[in-house]
Amino acid sequence: MSQMDPDAVSKAFVEHYYSTFDTNRVGLAGLYQEASMLTFEGQKIQGVQSIVAKLTSLPFQQCKHHISTVDCQPSGPASGMLVFVSGNLQLAGEEHALKFSQMFHLMPTPQGSFYVFNDIFRLNYA
Amino acid sequence: MSQMDPDAVSKAFVEHYYSTFDTNRVGLAGLYQEASMLTFEGQKIQGVQSIVAKLTSLPFQQCKHHISTVDCQPSGPASGMLVFVSGNLQLAGEEHALKFSQMFHLMPTPQGSFYVFNDIFRLNYA
Repeated sequence: MSQMDPDAVSKAFVEHYYSTFDTNRVGLAGLYQEASMLTFEGQKIQGVQSIVAKLTSLPFQQCKHHISTVDCQPSGPASGMLVFVSGNLQLAGEEHALKFSQMFHLMPTPQGSFYVFNDIFRLNYA
Repeated sequence: MSQMDPDAVSKAFVEHYYSTFDTNRVGLAGLYQEASMLTFEGQKIQGVQSIVAKLTSLPFQQCKHHISTVDCQPSGPASGMLVFVSGNLQLAGEEHALKFSQMFHLMPTPQGSFYVFNDIFRLNYA
């Protein structure tokens, strides 16, 4: 990860994350680890199993994320990366899309990839 | 910081940050350091002097932030803290408030306080 352009890495991550979310939500398990944290609309969840259980139990089946902005910054000397996303979430059968903001803290793995250490999601109500 | 409740610390930080922004913007200098990064509506800025120059040159004088949500998570073993904020920004003379999302990565100082290492700000356009 450290050898790649951070903006390119974060954009690739964001595309991978939301396309997995929209097509095969259980596949998100590969992006979290036991120490991973998710705060979803204020609810705190920890660990890959609990996080995937939460994401797969959300009260909608079909959805489509549309990304508006992606910002990234290195998070410090441990070579993590912060990714900040804004966009819209379209649920099947709903007329209006929901606006959301989400941040990820990506940490490198020994294999040269990365995983989601921190994840905070909020809907932006009008 | 490590001895305090993270939710209490993040809430206190958020109140301090936005009240300083709304009443004495140049006073935000005390919260950043040379390594600090700000991404403001996609524009990347580094260092306390450049960050404060940006914040004090925004094209409005009077403003008032209203906070809707504050979420926080520890960012890793270095005992930093991620703070994720959503809210509204009311500018003087404008009828409608602007929705925004912002994230801060707070890092501890040797004096037991903390400073803003990462700061990403986005308006959430309707």
